[in-house]
Amino acid sequence: MAQWNRSGYFRSSGSRDVNPDLEAERQTASFSVERLTAILDGGADNTRTRRAVEAVIHSDPGFSRENQYFQSQNERYEAAVRKSVYLKERMHQMGWTEDGPEIKYCFRALGGDLAFNVHRVFMNSILALGTDEQIAKWIPLADKYHIIGTYAQTELGHGTFLRGLETTAIFDISTQEFTLNTPKISAMKWWPGDLGRSATHAVVFAQLYIKGKCYGLHAFILQIRSLRDHSPAPGVIVGDIGPKMNFEHIDNGYLMLQNINIPRENMLSRFSQVLPDGTYVKRGSDKINYLTMIVTRVQILWTEVIPMLLKACTIAIRYSVVRRQSKLNPGDPEAKILDYQTQQQKLLPLLATAYAFHFMNAYVNEFYNKGYTEIKQENFDSLPELHALTSGLKAIITDYCTAGAEVCLRACGGHGYSALSGLPSLYTKLAASCTYEGENTVLFLQTARFLVKCLAAVHSGQPIPPLAAYLSSVDSGKCQAWTKMDFLKPDIYAEAYRHRATRLLGNAATKLQGLVQSGAEQHEAWNQCTVQLVQAAKAHCHYIVVKNFIATVEKLRNEAEIQKIAKHLCDLFALHGIFSNTGDFLHAGYISRDQMDMVTASYLNLLAVIRNDAVPLVDAFDFTDESLNSALGSYDGHVYQRLYEWAQKSPTNQQVSQAYASYLKPLFQSALSKL
Amino acid sequence: MAQWNRSGYFRSSGSRDVNPDLEAERQTASFSVERLTAILDGGADNTRTRRAVEAVIHSDPGFSRENQYFQSQNERYEAAVRKSVYLKERMHQMGWTEDGPEIKYCFRALGGDLAFNVHRVFMNSILALGTDEQIAKWIPLADKYHIIGTYAQTELGHGTFLRGLETTAIFDISTQEFTLNTPKISAMKWWPGDLGRSATHAVVFAQLYIKGKCYGLHAFILQIRSLRDHSPAPGVIVGDIGPKMNFEHIDNGYLMLQNINIPRENMLSRFSQVLPDGTYVKRGSDKINYLTMIVTRVQILWTEVIPMLLKACTIAIRYSVVRRQSKLNPGDPEAKILDYQTQQQKLLPLLATAYAFHFMNAYVNEFYNKGYTEIKQENFDSLPELHALTSGLKAIITDYCTAGAEVCLRACGGHGYSALSGLPSLYTKLAASCTYEGENTVLFLQTARFLVKCLAAVHSGQPIPPLAAYLSSVDSGKCQAWTKMDFLKPDIYAEAYRHRATRLLGNAATKLQGLVQSGAEQHEAWNQCTVQLVQAAKAHCHYIVVKNFIATVEKLRNEAEIQKIAKHLCDLFALHGIFSNTGDFLHAGYISRDQMDMVTASYLNLLAVIRNDAVPLVDAFDFTDESLNSALGSYDGHVYQRLYEWAQKSPTNQQVSQAYASYLKPLFQSALSKL
Repeated sequence: MAQWNRSGYFRSSGSRDVNPDLEAERQTASFSVERLTAILDGGADNTRTRRAVEAVIHSDPGFSRENQYFQSQNERYEAAVRKSVYLKERMHQMGWTEDGPEIKYCFRALGGDLAFNVHRVFMNSILALGTDEQIAKWIPLADKYHIIGTYAQTELGHGTFLRGLETTAIFDISTQEFTLNTPKISAMKWWPGDLGRSATHAVVFAQLYIKGKCYGLHAFILQIRSLRDHSPAPGVIVGDIGPKMNFEHIDNGYLMLQNINIPRENMLSRFSQVLPDGTYVKRGSDKINYLTMIVTRVQILWTEVIPMLLKACTIAIRYSVVRRQSKLNPGDPEAKILDYQTQQQKLLPLLATAYAFHFMNAYVNEFYNKGYTEIKQENFDSLPELHALTSGLKAIITDYCTAGAEVCLRACGGHGYSALSGLPSLYTKLAASCTYEGENTVLFLQTARFLVKCLAAVHSGQPIPPLAAYLSSVDSGKCQAWTKMDFLKPDIYAEAYRHRATRLLGNAATKLQGLVQSGAEQHEAWNQCTVQLVQAAKAHCHYIVVKNFIATVEKLRNEAEIQKIAKHLCDLFALHGIFSNTGDFLHAGYISRDQMDMVTASYLNLLAVIRNDAVPLVDAFDFTDESLNSALGSYDGHVYQRLYEWAQKSPTNQQVSQAYASYLKPLFQSALSKL
Repeated sequence: MAQWNRSGYFRSSGSRDVNPDLEAERQTASFSVERLTAILDGGADNTRTRRAVEAVIHSDPGFSRENQYFQSQNERYEAAVRKSVYLKERMHQMGWTEDGPEIKYCFRALGGDLAFNVHRVFMNSILALGTDEQIAKWIPLADKYHIIGTYAQTELGHGTFLRGLETTAIFDISTQEFTLNTPKISAMKWWPGDLGRSATHAVVFAQLYIKGKCYGLHAFILQIRSLRDHSPAPGVIVGDIGPKMNFEHIDNGYLMLQNINIPRENMLSRFSQVLPDGTYVKRGSDKINYLTMIVTRVQILWTEVIPMLLKACTIAIRYSVVRRQSKLNPGDPEAKILDYQTQQQKLLPLLATAYAFHFMNAYVNEFYNKGYTEIKQENFDSLPELHALTSGLKAIITDYCTAGAEVCLRACGGHGYSALSGLPSLYTKLAASCTYEGENTVLFLQTARFLVKCLAAVHSGQPIPPLAAYLSSVDSGKCQAWTKMDFLKPDIYAEAYRHRATRLLGNAATKLQGLVQSGAEQHEAWNQCTVQLVQAAKAHCHYIVVKNFIATVEKLRNEAEIQKIAKHLCDLFALHGIFSNTGDFLHAGYISRDQMDMVTASYLNLLAVIRNDAVPLVDAFDFTDESLNSALGSYDGHVYQRLYEWAQKSPTNQQVSQAYASYLKPLFQSALSKL
């Protein structure tokens, strides 16, 4: 390990001084960062709790992430299991409970690199689908990690289309058992987390057969590995699916079942049961389970997905005021790269997007709570709307966050590409979010299907769910902006987004109707419209996010300074969306070409405005250096020193290269006599 | 390792039968795949040579890529060095020379996973910048790998802006030596390949100082590691920069120099020399070196970048006809996912793009050969044009290929995210290409600068380089399309692209001029226009690619079937570009809204047309399974079997989990008594 301290320019990253270029950015903040942090946390009390948790986690060497970027898949897995078991212990010691406020801050501090996430889904599925007896039997064991479970739904050949799952569970009256089988290779369970190397148990989804009749998908609980020596149970073939683009710490697995017999009690039976004589009994509605699944999907957005965009912005923006490259003015020193308009164009709309998505949380919670109350009263009316909202939001948020992390990575040039920047792991994790918990194109089309129904309701005068109520409002003709300043009025741009969403949906629906009327089959007509239906669903979601940002800014009326900067961010988010999708807005003629030039001018002006507060705006996210785990993004801005220090720790610098001794040394000997 | 053969559905991937869904796609090809392959290879002779080379490489276990996805960074590096040394041996045995046709096919067969790429740049820099004596001394050693060199230009704090490099080389008349130093941490050489663990020598770029005066950047050759034991030379601090998003097989390194003295003869002196008395002599023009660098940049496109998009398309399209999911028609079996319009919209424009970029090669070569001839005659007139062409093409091609690989990855759902699909490594390698050999935004702006100059020449009646001649042609008013069929006429869409490129450049230039006229400094005005200048440069490059595709199709007039499908691909590429950038085309009013609806209709129709030949069109790329190295993309389409077989080989299934023994076993014991 090289140690060089000549001329004193090589500072330890432990020192407290801050890079002067970064420090200068903080001196000119137009608002109180601490106050904005409290707002983002949902109150200063939360900020205090969060920081207290972070202090506990970060001061504990058992939770160190120091060597994470150097670890193999196997080491990552081992560390995740160790930390998860240890966290359980520490939480118990600290008096932090599973439903307390601290747990989410633990995840945040640990950057999500824990095992047993799907074990939680295993537990939630038992809580939702199990009888009271089943819950009483399994949950206490699972809660203490005395068993580890997985949720085995997806198969090698089946993901999105659940009805197509091929695993079978055949009830045998004579033995009172179900026999589970994997009838073909495509029916092998594939991808479930915690399955590959950890799980002792699994909730397995299989087609239920009784007396030769198929009753569709049901959930069964079964043991897959010995509690004594962890060997696979007889008839069980189980293993790890191998390397992935990321999530090395998770043991995604495969599972094949050969004539596995389990007792009748092991079908999760809150909503449907098989009686001893083979009678199938359906009981109540399992729609509340549907709600639970929707909420799980949405929680991932705010606990994992959106924070990753916030982190990527923090890293890229801090780096962009430390990095200097080329000259703006021939006589000046090299310029901070954030002073280049093209760099602002890459990063600042993302910063605005990060805020836009963060602020959606309150809206979605409100929606969920309303739905939950109604559904408890057996009123399922709001379920389609909630499903449409969360499907579309999941898709648009994961799409934007993934694309955003990539932009941040590339905006940091070569150093962004180093694993030590933290950006490759953020990007590669986010990329998965576009597929897991619902593939995004499929989700957009589900939102589109809801919207098409709403539009039909508008035309036939039926009531419309609130979320789509805007479809029935009167068309306002043309955009009312006369100057570029008019495009800083939320009413103006909100109306433009509304118009775009309405028009794209209307066009797709008209095409759909036309195809059907000219004799196409319904499903074929639908397929021929899907490219345009996806566009319509995206425009709808975009509009929802813009509207919510506007509403959030309005609520900040008692925080003048913060309201001002939040308004700028909201304007930037909205105008960037128009600037990046000019065709959508121009096509209908709602925005004229002259108006589009005003949008461009206003948008580019906003970049320069936000640029001045860019660092304080990412500081307000208040990520610890340990949580960012980035050589480029740390609070003190000592980018080059940290890159160099961290690189020296790489195993490639610790190991003697076998390649040298085996292949190169003999060759180099030949040069000795000549040089 | 699980071995299960029950009911015979588990086939070895070595078998010759092809998945019937994939086979069916090949039966209906509208053209001869073999003929198209020959055209893509530049003649059937080349195809034969390529296949012969591939046969040699793939039959040799020394070149196996079988376990590549399971290897650590260190193992990847060791394997790359081993293969590189071995390839040199084998080429010698086979009688293949460094300038023969076989070498590029070796790289193709090996998927680029070789070491010593920068060693080649080291050699090229000596060949270009060295005197005949220097070449005679170093090249024979380097050619035999008796020394390994690196090209140390980029520094920790300096990439794009070469003038900002900080390494110093001070000439001392008394000793007749240069003393090289790394004066600050930001001056450390950082990123050079082959430096971290392999190189014995380096060409180092440093600011030359003689008697206190700086003469700018010059190249120096120095030894950095012992030829005897590979230890760093005194005063040299050298190591590996650690993990990256990909390129684990390359030892990108860092290098610090402390008072390294080298003899006067070690400055590369073809174009400039320091005489013993300290006199600095400039000799001839080094512009030919500039040409060499341009060509290196461009070669990467056709040997590495574009082939990766071709591979990604091959994988994703083959998988999309094997994978079935959901139902198009309620009564049917599940549909091939390539039959969904949204999947076609993701993949088929990429396929057209792959062809469009592949066909650019001939154009660029022609341009280069013309330039090379002129420059040899000391005529440098075409250099700015060549620079503008290659800068813009490098940027647009790497941007599109990177985005395309990501689309392919996501279009394969969860399985695309598995490393075994081959797609994560294609994507993460491509992502680097957007930064190395010139950061794309910087390159687009260089093209834009050229175009702005051309436009000024148009306005002042001066001659214009051929590439930009279109800027002076008369504006044709409005698009002349009357029906959607008109948009299948190359003249119609080429003209639309021309109009768009002209307008975007004109607008940016007008804004620039306006800012300067209203008193802004030139550089500040430029900065304020860069977002729009980048748009203009992209539109220019897009137009060049469309024009070249049209010309290529025309040349296929003796190949009726192939011309027909190539024409469809060309139409698709062009119309997809309009469909994806509607705003650019609508804004000027050149294409009306009604015409844009025709574009959409024609574009969507084309998807269905290309879909029928999608598999033959990727088969024509003729990648071997070994070169694709993808569980999803192999020729036989046995996707699920291969995923399962390969997963079993993962080290995560070979190692006993330490985590179980250490952390989980004690917990599971507690459950034993209860279950």
